[in-house]
Amino acid sequence: MKNILVIGAGRTSTYLINYLLKQAKENQWFVTVADVDPELATTKVNGHPNGRGTWLDVLKPNDRRELMQRNDIIISMLPSNLHFRIAKDCIKLKKQLVTSAYVARTVYGLNPEIIDASLSFMSEMGLDPGVEQMSMMQKVNQIKEKGGKISSLRTYSGGLIAPECDDNPWHYKFSWHPRNVILAGQGTSQYLVKGRYKFIPYSRLFTQYRLVEIPGMGTLEAYANRDSLLYRDLYGLKNIPTLKSSTLHYPGFCDAWHALVRLGLTDDSYPILESENMTYREYIEAHLDVFRDSTASLKERTAQFLGLGPSSEIIKRLEWLGLFDRRKIGIPSASPAKILQHLLEKKWNMKPKDKDMVVIQHVIKYKLKGKKMKSTSTMTLKGNNAENTAMAKFVGLPIGIFVKHIIKGNISETGVRIPIDKNVYTPVLEELEEYGIVFNEVIEEI
Amino acid sequence: MKNILVIGAGRTSTYLINYLLKQAKENQWFVTVADVDPELATTKVNGHPNGRGTWLDVLKPNDRRELMQRNDIIISMLPSNLHFRIAKDCIKLKKQLVTSAYVARTVYGLNPEIIDASLSFMSEMGLDPGVEQMSMMQKVNQIKEKGGKISSLRTYSGGLIAPECDDNPWHYKFSWHPRNVILAGQGTSQYLVKGRYKFIPYSRLFTQYRLVEIPGMGTLEAYANRDSLLYRDLYGLKNIPTLKSSTLHYPGFCDAWHALVRLGLTDDSYPILESENMTYREYIEAHLDVFRDSTASLKERTAQFLGLGPSSEIIKRLEWLGLFDRRKIGIPSASPAKILQHLLEKKWNMKPKDKDMVVIQHVIKYKLKGKKMKSTSTMTLKGNNAENTAMAKFVGLPIGIFVKHIIKGNISETGVRIPIDKNVYTPVLEELEEYGIVFNEVIEEI
Repeated sequence: MKNILVIGAGRTSTYLINYLLKQAKENQWFVTVADVDPELATTKVNGHPNGRGTWLDVLKPNDRRELMQRNDIIISMLPSNLHFRIAKDCIKLKKQLVTSAYVARTVYGLNPEIIDASLSFMSEMGLDPGVEQMSMMQKVNQIKEKGGKISSLRTYSGGLIAPECDDNPWHYKFSWHPRNVILAGQGTSQYLVKGRYKFIPYSRLFTQYRLVEIPGMGTLEAYANRDSLLYRDLYGLKNIPTLKSSTLHYPGFCDAWHALVRLGLTDDSYPILESENMTYREYIEAHLDVFRDSTASLKERTAQFLGLGPSSEIIKRLEWLGLFDRRKIGIPSASPAKILQHLLEKKWNMKPKDKDMVVIQHVIKYKLKGKKMKSTSTMTLKGNNAENTAMAKFVGLPIGIFVKHIIKGNISETGVRIPIDKNVYTPVLEELEEYGIVFNEVIEEI
Repeated sequence: MKNILVIGAGRTSTYLINYLLKQAKENQWFVTVADVDPELATTKVNGHPNGRGTWLDVLKPNDRRELMQRNDIIISMLPSNLHFRIAKDCIKLKKQLVTSAYVARTVYGLNPEIIDASLSFMSEMGLDPGVEQMSMMQKVNQIKEKGGKISSLRTYSGGLIAPECDDNPWHYKFSWHPRNVILAGQGTSQYLVKGRYKFIPYSRLFTQYRLVEIPGMGTLEAYANRDSLLYRDLYGLKNIPTLKSSTLHYPGFCDAWHALVRLGLTDDSYPILESENMTYREYIEAHLDVFRDSTASLKERTAQFLGLGPSSEIIKRLEWLGLFDRRKIGIPSASPAKILQHLLEKKWNMKPKDKDMVVIQHVIKYKLKGKKMKSTSTMTLKGNNAENTAMAKFVGLPIGIFVKHIIKGNISETGVRIPIDKNVYTPVLEELEEYGIVFNEVIEEI
């Protein structure tokens, strides 16, 4: 019997746990789900004979190691800042590790030790990073195998709200970690266009979006997502002239988000003093330049500050968030980012019957037998409701499927890995099709 | 005999070392100057019988501790990221510590241990932080002692080039750490105006400068300097309505620096790939939005991007820096901030006979016996040349004077300290007057 430990029983673990339990009996697995909330863990296991829920405070090293010791494969659904400790333990205890998060630099540093211990630590097995990368690698390798020479690769992905459940002026609701949405894009985004590097500082990232047509979805906004060049060599695309990955939103989002950035409301680097007693009005006032014209309302002065008219759509969105309200913020010594998260979690919360939607598109230009070709692969998937989201499928199922293949012995590479190898992404993408994650490819001569 | 150790023999240590040596014979001190460059240390001691220069690599803990052990007072002129180690050693070895740098958060964390060991760790004994803070506290306490009630305190300080040596279009040369100049203002600046908090994100800090008249200097630009509220309680100004400290530059600097910020050239958070082989032209091109209009030159397109005319004064400043040149950057995997430093160190270097200039002004509004009063205290000081700068006086002399008073037993407070107590700032400011650091105060009814 193989023992699998899932650390973290939150919303993004639901599909993963269900998948593992469904396979557990026939494959002789036992699945332990550990969470700081043991009831949640037990509920997720739902009395399955091959599983149990248990309590774990991951910050207690002895408890953590004791539990890890009794398992063969460790799946961490924890926030990425905790992965380094788990990774260190896995080396010591000789356990395989799988996560959906980005590889932390610190974990990369452990690579020699991981290889020495003949272990494999697979990361980025979710969405952004995850399925969009695996499907991109699959298309790229298919074109290369046919003899195509790729000149341009653009990947778009987004976690949106389904159009029929879009009922707020921002056209957005949270289907993944609110904190990651608030901090998205901070730093400098990097990509390549026609052999030239492009760098976009955060302060103008949300003004430099592009419009992209997605079949069945119409026009969406796409802004450059982090460092598109990070894995260029790993992807086998060392000399590609154009390489860019972007994040999708419904039209109107980027301009309005940029207003929040310009005001300074997404900064996570310092605490606002006495934020608990400050009203949102006072808080916004504090971010405007000093104005002498006191006959204008705060809303009018905010519009003026942003170079907008007071009844513009952007000002309406800010007003809808309650940023001009006399209500107290109510949370102490919070950073602007934390205050914004506190506000948005109420405003952008999915209602129980709301459906989310994941959209991925790869646009690849290449030369094949003297012809210029363009491949456009598109995937859209809606969730069932606020609990069983499309996002949770993307974050849970790839890990489950991958774990099955590790146990079957189909994967033997060691070290810190991301899912860009054919023997990894092929079975995962193949089985994901059964769950509706299907890419529709259109190839045309251009 | 008292043994004093100065760690770091760079330009900012010159006045300090000279001051200590001058006092050494009569006071029975022995001054050891340690530097990774022992020749530099020896040169600075210049054969004085009460001093010696020696080699020290501060990153070697055993060597460092061995040297510290043999001294009574440790003066650290090191970059602030090294202070924590020195502070830990000082606790273990029971040594007093003095520095000119900001108190690091990590060092604050050592406060209980420092108090337990009956030690005093004095920081911010230089300029910004240092003399501007001491002189501000002196004025504030003088007004309070007279019975005045302070409603507004604005402090301005700047390390400038003397007007007669100002021969470049930026009207600026380096008289202190270039890296600190490049990174100045990053984060969010905070201050108080008429009882209201004000927050300015870095992305618009250099557009929200104010103009200030300095007697004898004309109009200067002042932008909000870091967190003006950090020490509000320590200053005894808990309920003051207006509190702001600002950094001074000659007119034209802030708008031009903002162009560098907008382009993204001050970012220190990521390395530019292959920066060694990139030309400045390519580097600037990479920071512009993608333009289709290829008939326009890079200079014209940069102007367009910044919303300026191609022959504007700001574009001229960028051109003077060589940002449109075909020359290679030449340093590998450098962050934008590092690339800018590399460029500016050549362009903004003081010539041997150039004089720098330090300017400090405090503007304090208060009520006294029913009258509204305004006190304006101004200090300007020029250096002698590029080696003996005004800046080095400010960074070196206060420490020297303070150390004399510790040894005399005039200062008994323990813990992590900044020089805001009367028994500390009074003797320091008094003796600084002998070196030309004199504040000229004008009091008027308003």
